[in-house]
Amino acid sequence: MTTSAPVATPDITRQLAKFAVEARWEDLPEPARAAARRTFGNAVALMVGSSRHPAVAAILGALDGLGMPAQASVLGRAERLGVVWAPLVNGVAAHVEDFDDTHLPTVVHPGAAVVPAALALGEWRGASGEDVLCAVAVGVEVALRVGLGLTPAHFDQGWHLTGTAGHVGAAAAAGRMLGLGVNELQTALALGATQAAGLTAALGTMVKSFHPGKAAADGVEAALLAQRGFTSAPTMIEGRRGLAAVASPAAEPDLMVDELGSRWELEANAFKPYACGIVSHAIIDAAIELREQATAEEIESVELTVHPVVLDVMGVLNPAAGLEAKFSAPHCFAVGLLDGTAGLEQYTDARVGAADAQALRARVRIKLDPAVAKGAAVAQVTTADGRRLHAEVPHATGSAERPMTDAQLRAKASALVEPILGEGSVDLIDLAFAADALDDLDALTAAARPTGTSG
Amino acid sequence: MTTSAPVATPDITRQLAKFAVEARWEDLPEPARAAARRTFGNAVALMVGSSRHPAVAAILGALDGLGMPAQASVLGRAERLGVVWAPLVNGVAAHVEDFDDTHLPTVVHPGAAVVPAALALGEWRGASGEDVLCAVAVGVEVALRVGLGLTPAHFDQGWHLTGTAGHVGAAAAAGRMLGLGVNELQTALALGATQAAGLTAALGTMVKSFHPGKAAADGVEAALLAQRGFTSAPTMIEGRRGLAAVASPAAEPDLMVDELGSRWELEANAFKPYACGIVSHAIIDAAIELREQATAEEIESVELTVHPVVLDVMGVLNPAAGLEAKFSAPHCFAVGLLDGTAGLEQYTDARVGAADAQALRARVRIKLDPAVAKGAAVAQVTTADGRRLHAEVPHATGSAERPMTDAQLRAKASALVEPILGEGSVDLIDLAFAADALDDLDALTAAARPTGTSG
Repeated sequence: MTTSAPVATPDITRQLAKFAVEARWEDLPEPARAAARRTFGNAVALMVGSSRHPAVAAILGALDGLGMPAQASVLGRAERLGVVWAPLVNGVAAHVEDFDDTHLPTVVHPGAAVVPAALALGEWRGASGEDVLCAVAVGVEVALRVGLGLTPAHFDQGWHLTGTAGHVGAAAAAGRMLGLGVNELQTALALGATQAAGLTAALGTMVKSFHPGKAAADGVEAALLAQRGFTSAPTMIEGRRGLAAVASPAAEPDLMVDELGSRWELEANAFKPYACGIVSHAIIDAAIELREQATAEEIESVELTVHPVVLDVMGVLNPAAGLEAKFSAPHCFAVGLLDGTAGLEQYTDARVGAADAQALRARVRIKLDPAVAKGAAVAQVTTADGRRLHAEVPHATGSAERPMTDAQLRAKASALVEPILGEGSVDLIDLAFAADALDDLDALTAAARPTGTSG
Repeated sequence: MTTSAPVATPDITRQLAKFAVEARWEDLPEPARAAARRTFGNAVALMVGSSRHPAVAAILGALDGLGMPAQASVLGRAERLGVVWAPLVNGVAAHVEDFDDTHLPTVVHPGAAVVPAALALGEWRGASGEDVLCAVAVGVEVALRVGLGLTPAHFDQGWHLTGTAGHVGAAAAAGRMLGLGVNELQTALALGATQAAGLTAALGTMVKSFHPGKAAADGVEAALLAQRGFTSAPTMIEGRRGLAAVASPAAEPDLMVDELGSRWELEANAFKPYACGIVSHAIIDAAIELREQATAEEIESVELTVHPVVLDVMGVLNPAAGLEAKFSAPHCFAVGLLDGTAGLEQYTDARVGAADAQALRARVRIKLDPAVAKGAAVAQVTTADGRRLHAEVPHATGSAERPMTDAQLRAKASALVEPILGEGSVDLIDLAFAADALDDLDALTAAARPTGTSG
């Protein structure tokens, strides 16, 4: 038996279940409530924005012959699916563009696994927005706590925490939405833990986004089973041959419950402003700053000084397709300067192939300097008329030091939603970022449906 | 990064996919075909026999509100469910009594994960029995091969291989049933691999049987997604941060494809004659042998000589309930002698509490001797009239050295099925053990439905 260090706290699954059952929205600290609202709104916007992605189309195609009842909405589309299936599709959509939230200490993307579970059950049961947001808060917190206890060794071993910890978090949110008691919710967490899976070999493929989608769907299923009398062992997370011992060579399960309920990891959930690898975000910030001073036509050359890790990840110098461009530092700079943003539109095949982007990318040189911080960038621009421009970004937008403001996050959400919903997008953004005020989710799911379609 | 030794064979997922696509029933060696028939028939009988189990009832209760289309049968019941859901229920039923098949080198119980996937898709698509049996053969072989490559280190770490390797095997069987090409089947295997999960902390609970149920359901889903264009990385089993590297500290992935298609691990799939822990099976054989020579009333004392491991596992001397009795060597001897068998009926609360079983258990003493083989037993009986009787069983029925005969396996199946189906059970057994001769599965699923109900 390979096992981790002995567990000092023997009832972690139980404590997490009690926390999930007993949390009350009005007792959450305001920063935690705000983080839950932002996590929900950001996830909703991504679901709508990615609702035409081929991964979403593949799943809907597969489900098409299965005689699905209309219980829960696929956001951004006319389809409504069974309450276990809608979370699968919405979870894939929320994550597939790598544009969602990130809890940096664990590298969990909690929104994609947790929000779809709470959303589907909330819609199905006519729950209030406050109940849904509280379930999101609880589910995210459980996912992050489980992640903290498993990682970094768990990640280093090759596990995708959004799939593993996400399974437990989604089960917590779903159990909360069904109003389970502590025993039943403990079983739901056990079912989540025993299904915790997701290999990082899947990174860069559709399967990466399948992990949170499946976590969300399995979480709903786990809560339904627990509600109907399915039973489990009580210590599936912390026990002998439980999740911590089996899936992490150096777990610290006590971190899962340390100050649980008083300190909220949820508050550290961060949001990506740009739809590409996080290490190039400072480059995009620098480009956006420089576009005030020079147009692309005026620029003769660009020198970006970054930490060597940036080129490891973002080293595609002349990308041929949209997905490649997400890993291209020159393209990131080019769209930042040309378009003033770096959303989904900036990483389409068409945008990557456009003449202006190609021309500007060709003028970018990258200089590596280990003295520059990993999340920082320095840009030097020389113009044709001999000016030398300079931008220095020590911390990128969306970093812990410089979180996205509410206005920035809503602008990101609007840009995601508008191509799908057109004029109706304003309504959806207003509803999604203040969802705790809603009597039920009907107005929100209706607003997320494209004009001319009906559920 | 913690990783296993380098992989000598780089295209294992691909090779398994090619094997699954290209296998032809008529080209299988006859022992492999026979093993597929036995695996299928045994699993069908267990599904029917356990169709009233509380774990099955809990799942059906949870699914009840989900507006399920009637696509695939729950064996032994009137319910028909969606093609992804029937495998969940049937997989749980096949495994929940710990009475199914076992591939001893890997401790995989392949039938419970693989047969429900092939069965549901076969029924849904009107496939021939031969196609279904070939999918079972292929899926079992893939599950066992993946298990061989991961274990023993994978099991020692705390993974339940029926859940982990079972996921990949079920995806292979399902992909085969859908007629996928090699690329698509490779994606199905990848989706199975990235969902490989199941903690042995669940042993002794309903969740243990949830593992193969979910493997079967996820396998069907994986094949449906792959068919509709979902894509993955090509080396999810053998690649960097793939299943072998992530989930086993000492994987030997080459074993997954060594002589694949010419040597069939399927042929080593063994069947349990008795519904209890395998280390007491020799005790039951000895008791059955002795019942020819003495009735329980005549017996004054029993001395069982066994390896110490037997008492570790089977050390409940005076069980109070059916589940405990599965781990009681004295109870196993008692029912063997009293009833001449040890099926589900022998491990009910009522049978455990019956006066004759209690009385005989009280007369059993256990003597430990490390010189006796783990799978063996020696029984010494002294009768009230002074006779000394002796039975020595070096290899239990169902062991590799003494596999169950077809007649024994059919008798086991009949005993499982009769309490549910009554007179109709003969038809089902005949169909289930020669399923490759069927034009489609309609007659079989109809025969598995209790009289007076309809699908």
